[in-house]
Amino acid sequence: MAKVGVVLSGCGVYDGSEIHEAVCTLLALDRAGAEAICMAPDVDQAVVNHLTGEEIPGASRNVLEESARIARGNIRNITDVKAGDLDALIFPGGFGAAKSLCSFATKGTECTANPDVARLVREVVAANKPLAAICIAPALIARILGDDKRAPSLTVGTDPATAEALETMGAQHVNCPVTEFVVDKDNKLVSTPAYMLAGSIKEAAEGIEKTVQAVLDLI
Amino acid sequence: MAKVGVVLSGCGVYDGSEIHEAVCTLLALDRAGAEAICMAPDVDQAVVNHLTGEEIPGASRNVLEESARIARGNIRNITDVKAGDLDALIFPGGFGAAKSLCSFATKGTECTANPDVARLVREVVAANKPLAAICIAPALIARILGDDKRAPSLTVGTDPATAEALETMGAQHVNCPVTEFVVDKDNKLVSTPAYMLAGSIKEAAEGIEKTVQAVLDLI
Repeated sequence: MAKVGVVLSGCGVYDGSEIHEAVCTLLALDRAGAEAICMAPDVDQAVVNHLTGEEIPGASRNVLEESARIARGNIRNITDVKAGDLDALIFPGGFGAAKSLCSFATKGTECTANPDVARLVREVVAANKPLAAICIAPALIARILGDDKRAPSLTVGTDPATAEALETMGAQHVNCPVTEFVVDKDNKLVSTPAYMLAGSIKEAAEGIEKTVQAVLDLI
Repeated sequence: MAKVGVVLSGCGVYDGSEIHEAVCTLLALDRAGAEAICMAPDVDQAVVNHLTGEEIPGASRNVLEESARIARGNIRNITDVKAGDLDALIFPGGFGAAKSLCSFATKGTECTANPDVARLVREVVAANKPLAAICIAPALIARILGDDKRAPSLTVGTDPATAEALETMGAQHVNCPVTEFVVDKDNKLVSTPAYMLAGSIKEAAEGIEKTVQAVLDLI
């Protein structure tokens, strides 16, 4: 049974993991016979009221504790996870990937990645194991791997500004429709736009299901 | 396009909606061509740390705001929803259904239901529209409909103590495996055990997908 890490970043599209994307990832892994190993960094995050879309001044939650909601409590601190524990690694999207896993949401192309996340991504790539990034998470991967000699090819859908930002960070951007995915065979990277483009959950789910299968095929 | 209400109760299995169940419901509805109308009561809830499973003393969140995380902000206050707005109604499970939609988690068979939830359930049943309850949510339906002259037939899986509690509240309990569902044709009620029995998300998803289809077939 393949062990696939799923890196969460909280619980809710505006300040954490996009919940539909995370759950569709877990469901696709389970249906394919793979074991999901959920993890998140033990760091604090700002809180967005998802009814209004407004940040709540002064409010703070813990990313690992909030991510545990999606994982039903079965989650590890990413600090303790090594590439040797995994056969592959998947990053669902949501603003948490661009706020807590890296600072892309606020710093754009000047962003930095969480050190534990960057360390695990580099370990996985060095071990020639596949990695997938969903929705906005390719921005995180561009930040971490963009300076490598084999530039990563990734998609965030078709948004020109975000695509340009990824290229500024050293990635090659490939346009992609929501129900499809892009594979970078050299780097064993898979990406899909999900809610960067999705008009509804079934569109996101289709791209994610294909992405999960592509990742498992690369193991 | 059928309009199906989905009643959420927060965001996270231990103090809100079970996230996998809620998302699998939304995905199954979208794939079947139905429109999900998410709603929740505007009430406060206690907070459980999902990493430790412990309640956080003094902490409080708003059920409607937390439910909005699952609904990506597209959610209504249940107070404003009438049966005439809907073709069917579905309750995902999670402790929120037994803590915020009714008090079954703390009061057992002496529990009471949230008045707005009880009002909408009664309206939907009176309009002869189908209703589904997932996981522990059948306890809520037993509380609301158990005294009616046509006793509801429901399942919460195979747990004898919970089954007995439903019968004490006036329902008839039917044992059911996780990937199946129970239909009460007289009352147009559908129920499935989901995480009352599920060992993994694919088991819960299969029962929920069948339940959603059964509900749509009853419209």
